[in-house]
Order: sequence, then structure tokens, then C-alpha cells
Amino acid sequence: MIRYYNALILMPDQSLLNGELVTDGSVISYIGKEKKEGLTFEREINLNGNLIIPAFKNAHTHSAMTFLRSYADDLPLNEWLFNKVFPLEAKLTADDIYLFTKIAVLEYLTSGISTSFDMYFEPEAYVQANTEYGFRTVLCGAVSGEAKNAEKLEKRYNKFNGISPLISYKLGFHAEYTASEELLDAVGALAKKYKAPVFMHNSETESETENCIKKYGKTPTALFESKGIFDYGGGGFHCVYLNDNDMDIFVKRGLFAVTCPASNAKLASGIAPLTRMMKKGVKIAMGTDGPASNNCLDMFREMFLATALQKIAQKDASALDGAEVLKMATSNGALALGLDSCDVLAVGKQADLAVIDMSAPNMQPVSNVVKNIVYSGSKSNIKMTVVAGRILFENGVFNINDDIEKLYHDANVRKEEIIRS
Amino acid sequence: MIRYYNALILMPDQSLLNGELVTDGSVISYIGKEKKEGLTFEREINLNGNLIIPAFKNAHTHSAMTFLRSYADDLPLNEWLFNKVFPLEAKLTADDIYLFTKIAVLEYLTSGISTSFDMYFEPEAYVQANTEYGFRTVLCGAVSGEAKNAEKLEKRYNKFNGISPLISYKLGFHAEYTASEELLDAVGALAKKYKAPVFMHNSETESETENCIKKYGKTPTALFESKGIFDYGGGGFHCVYLNDNDMDIFVKRGLFAVTCPASNAKLASGIAPLTRMMKKGVKIAMGTDGPASNNCLDMFREMFLATALQKIAQKDASALDGAEVLKMATSNGALALGLDSCDVLAVGKQADLAVIDMSAPNMQPVSNVVKNIVYSGSKSNIKMTVVAGRILFENGVFNINDDIEKLYHDANVRKEEIIRS
Repeated sequence: MIRYYNALILMPDQSLLNGELVTDGSVISYIGKEKKEGLTFEREINLNGNLIIPAFKNAHTHSAMTFLRSYADDLPLNEWLFNKVFPLEAKLTADDIYLFTKIAVLEYLTSGISTSFDMYFEPEAYVQANTEYGFRTVLCGAVSGEAKNAEKLEKRYNKFNGISPLISYKLGFHAEYTASEELLDAVGALAKKYKAPVFMHNSETESETENCIKKYGKTPTALFESKGIFDYGGGGFHCVYLNDNDMDIFVKRGLFAVTCPASNAKLASGIAPLTRMMKKGVKIAMGTDGPASNNCLDMFREMFLATALQKIAQKDASALDGAEVLKMATSNGALALGLDSCDVLAVGKQADLAVIDMSAPNMQPVSNVVKNIVYSGSKSNIKMTVVAGRILFENGVFNINDDIEKLYHDANVRKEEIIRS
Repeated sequence: MIRYYNALILMPDQSLLNGELVTDGSVISYIGKEKKEGLTFEREINLNGNLIIPAFKNAHTHSAMTFLRSYADDLPLNEWLFNKVFPLEAKLTADDIYLFTKIAVLEYLTSGISTSFDMYFEPEAYVQANTEYGFRTVLCGAVSGEAKNAEKLEKRYNKFNGISPLISYKLGFHAEYTASEELLDAVGALAKKYKAPVFMHNSETESETENCIKKYGKTPTALFESKGIFDYGGGGFHCVYLNDNDMDIFVKRGLFAVTCPASNAKLASGIAPLTRMMKKGVKIAMGTDGPASNNCLDMFREMFLATALQKIAQKDASALDGAEVLKMATSNGALALGLDSCDVLAVGKQADLAVIDMSAPNMQPVSNVVKNIVYSGSKSNIKMTVVAGRILFENGVFNINDDIEKLYHDANVRKEEIIRS
């Protein structure tokens, strides 16, 4: 058991409790104003008034793409994707994905993120990286092309679900524009067979959406709905070009729109209509997207951008309240990923926590803690990141059994080999 | 003398040198690949491959507004300004400004900022706060209203210039919409008398710009130009609604447009036309604006936003190259503030430095250091901030002779008193 005392605790209703929190193994076993007597602790940590929040959930990413960080910025989207990203990705081995995923996990930990919803190939490699580091990850199927690839998806779905308490797997495919219609049918059949939610890139760019309408006479969302893909929920990544009918489908099916504002800005994809979605009741989670298109894995940046871009797009400084944004980045993320036990701080929930340094000047003076997190918070405020009760990052130091200097060295060597080969 | 060795050094042309840098008092006395022999150092610091850059220059801020941080977010602009900001500002004493400015200075230091261009009232109080902390600041005149207030401006201009090596003062007034025409004439006369540049809020919002055109038949920029205010240069803060003729005036007079993207987004003011300005040759610097409208004082956030918003506005992922953005936040900021000796790392220049942690995972692997700073850098990467040769912030600790816990306590007490009185 670990006791965190002298803490400010962000409760499920966003109120604050001055008190303490106890973790027992992977679970939160106590939250209260007073010390709980009669317990034996392996460690007691005086938080000196610092704030415990549910850790951030990065609801869309491609972790291993750290290898392309700052390799090809400031390029038009198509040149970036077809001339830089795809040819280099094709050279990646499973070992590379293992290596580059680890760097992303370290970065998540510095940013108070406990969980990624990770879409990439070679899932064995990224399961290994995440498991070794003790990080929680939900793998998202990433198949594309022919219908028979749905078999691979089904095999992985059965292989990885239940493989470890920290790993789960969701049905998913890359996107409409990389899938045959037969694959969409096959994925719809899997959704029904397993009564399972399905996720994919959806309406990220205007041209993707328009081309889908040209091809099928339907938006991607309406197409997927017609294939039964959303019969048991799920959601879409990006959702920049959802129309009102799409949003109605999202509401009807309880789907999550995972917004990735930094990626959508950096790649000039656009601004997702979050304000409109919220009015209609669409559930919104938040992701960084991969480090090639962002370039950092920082939920503070995503949170500020999400609301800032709505304020600009709506010409209304009151658009998208910061308190809602924090929910998107924490509890909604957990619910989108099917991690109902990781959404808030409460007894019996998983101990996936971040500790925010309130003694940093960007948090002072304090008028509204929640708004401070969203509007002035930064990675530099993360004092601790705890995943399933284990403190993996504390005061700038990783509690991970690995040679991080060697990891960086190897990553730089392999990155150069991949680029030059 | 302080020796920084095993360093990566960002040179004036944005190339990188592996080597060392020596400071002698407030000045950079050596940059080279090899150790300079024959010197006696008070301290030798092994940077382990970390990166020295010129510190960021925050070219527009109202530091003391930390007292309103997160007090009134997510409100329409006019409600925020007239019902929240102005009534509370009216209650501030000089002691309050001293107190709240200190918090901002601490925050600047955590963000690698060495210098602020600070517009507020009670300049004696913020000079005192900055001087005690060893921070470099350029005060900007903030007069408004009647013509006779130009006398106060002139008095302060003569009082504060030369008062300390770390303090200077620029002619300035709040904005067109808070100035009488007679005051504008009087400021124009001062510009001529002292052959001095002049700064002000300029074209921050659409309504400000339109109202000026209604009143004077001219944009703010054209109005100021007609009054001789720009005869010796200067610039404007925000510049969201500059038209082509305004930009031509900026180019002709060598004016700096100081962009504040986070504030312009959060207050729904709009996106400054930086891409168009750059094509025309307008010089651009960058600021955070005050913490009531931002809410944090973080040049990393400003840099990413500046380019991200251009990419969205232009629908072009290649808009506003990250390398240009870094110049705006560093060398252009120094030049805008008249600090020609603080712009780049070179022998004889002032030692205003920031050290960036390259061993943090968000900087790995390394393909392009400059792009990494702009696209994936964060406050959490600031290992050191050095102002005029003095290391004021190092590894999370302030090298400042003050009781910071008491400072926060006092600031919270006064903030509450101001709000409740």
C-alpha cells in the first residue's frame, strides 16, 4: 500500500478534496480527509498540497512514430505522407517498433499520461515495450486492404485481449480510404460476432470525406453505420469533417469522437466541430496522434488547443469550457477505451494517477484549479505518473528498469539507418 | 567566469556547434569547439550534450496580471474585460504589482525567458520586482486618455532609461481606443523629440480596427503613421487585423509586429496574418500577453500555436516554417526591444541563455534540433535560464534570494482580498 497524504484530490465531480489517497496494489483503496488508521504502508508520500488527478488517457496515437519526430516538418500533407512517412515506415522491423515505442512511453509518463490507444503494426512488439515498462495500453486494430485481413484482426483480437491486465485490444481498421468495401463488410461481421466496438480514422481531412462520398454516396460515418460496424459502439479518430447526420449516428450509437487538435493543426487538416458535437451530445475524447504529425505527446498542449481552436472558430471566448476539456482528456478517454475502471479517482478504481505540482509559478495564485490545469498547465507540472498503482515517473526520474541512455543511442542509430537505407 | 562545456550551441545562423561557451560577468566571452586555456572559472558546468539557445524574449506581456490567472476564463471578451479585469485592476496597489510581477518573473525563468517587454502601471513596483530578481525587462509606456498624460510618459522615459543595466523604457501608449487624438499627437511629438520608437496595442480585434476607421477614416496603423508616432520605428502588439497598407507602413518604418497567438485564440480575437506579413517583409516578434488572457507565460506554447494557426488559416502544412518561429521568439524579440546585444549567441553579446534538456524523451531521437524545440519542446525541457550571465534557474530550482512559499501565500491572500473587496 502507498499513502499519498497532504494532497489535493480532484474528485469525480471536479470538486477538490484536501486529504489523502491510498493505493493497494493496482487499485485505489481509500480517499478521505483523514488518515485511515490500521494500515501498513510500503511508502508514505507527503504531497505538500500538490494535486492528484486521474492520469491523462491518450485516446489516439501511433507511438512508434517517434522515429520520424522532426524528420519532415513544414511540408505539404501529401508530400509528407507519401514521400516521407510511408516509405520509411515500410522499412521498420518489429525490433524497431519495440525501440521507438519505448521512447513514446517515456514521453507519456513525463506528461501525466497513463494509457495510450495505440494503432500500429507489429502489435507483439509494442505490447512487449508497454508491458516491460508497466504502461497501460489499448491496442487498436489497424488492418487495411482486402477482406481476408479481417482474419488477422480477429486473431489479434482474441490473442491480445486477456493477455495481461495492462493490455487490451479493440477491433479497428486504418480508414475508409485504405480499406476495400469487402473489408468493411468483414469488420462489420466481426463487430456483430463479438458484440464489440470498432475504431478507425474517420473524416480526418476534407478530401478523404469528399472522396468517400464520391465513391459510396455516403460519408465515412454513414458508410460504416450501414455496414453494421457501429452496432456495438466504438468511435472515430479526428472527426474533423463530421456533418450533422454523422453526429446523429455518433449520438445514437454512443460513439466517441477522438479529437487530435495539434495534429489537425500541424497537418492543416482543419478544426473539428467540437462545439457543435457537444451541443448534439457526441462524446469526445482526446489524443495526440503520432509523433510524426504532432510532434510531441503532450495532453496539456492538446487541451489548450482544443478549446483555443473552438474559441477562434466560433469567434466566442466562452466556447468549449476548460472544465469539459479536462474531462475529455481524462475520464472520457478512459470510457472511450473501454477502461471503465480508470476514469476517475474513487475507491475501487484503478490507481492511474498524475500528481500536478501546484507550487510551480504557472499555477499561482490559485483561483480555479481545473482551469489552471487546462489553461496554464504544462508537462513541467507533472511530479508523478502512476499506472496501476506503480509510480513509474517521479520528480523527473523514471522508475523503469532500462538503460535509457542506451535506448536513445540505439534509437538514433536505427533512425539514421532507416532514413539512409 | 562560468564555463559551459560538452554543450550543443545554437549559433546565429541556426547551425549547431558541439563545444563550449564561457561567460564573463554579463557577457559571452568565448564560444568554440575546444576548451579555452588559461582562464580561471568560478564554475565549470558539464552540459552532457544539452543545448544552449539564446533565451526567449517575451515581447508583449502585462506581468502583474498573474493575480487574475484562472479567475475569469471562458467568458465572452467584453464581459471578461469590463466586468472582471478592469474593476479588479483598479484596486491594485503598487505593493500588489510588486508581488504579482514576481510570480510572473519566476514563471518566465521556468520557461527559458530572460526578458519581458512589460506594459503595466506603477512602473516603480515592477522595476523593483525585476531588479531584485535579476531579470531583464523593458518597460513599455502605457498612457491613455488626455494629452497631458504624455508628460508622465516623458518623465518615465527619462527616469527609467539608464536606471540599471537590466532595465530600459520605451515610449508607448495603451491603444488607439483608449487615447484621445491629442494624446496621439503628443506621443508623436515625443517620438520626434527623442528620435525614439513607440509601441502600443494595435489592431488586436476586429471591432477595435473598425471603430478606428469609423472615427478617423484610417486604420490604427495609418493613424499612428500620420501622427509621426512611427517616425523612429517601434511596433504594435497583436496586429491581428493589419491590412496590406498597414503592412507596407510596418515595412517602411521597420516596425515589429508582436504576435500573441495564445491570447488571440483564448479571447477569440482571431489569427494574425503572419504568413502574409512575412511575405511582405514585416518583422515579427512574439509575446505571451498577460496571464489573465493566456493564462500561462510559456514561449513554447506561443511558438507552436503561431505556426499551427498559420497552417490552419492557410490550409497549408508548409505555412510558417518552424525555424522562422524560433527566430521570432528569440532574436527578433531582442531586436524589437532594442536589445541588440541580446539577440544571438556570439562573443561580446549578453549572456542571456536557456539550456534545453536533450535527454528528455520528447527530444528523442534527434533529426532536427530547431524543429524539435518548436514542435515538441516544452517548459519541461528548460534546465537553466541565465540572465546577464547569472544562472537564475537551474534544474527546477530558483537561484533567487526570496521566500517563494511566502510569496505564493501573500499573493493568494491579496488576490482574495482584491476579489472580495
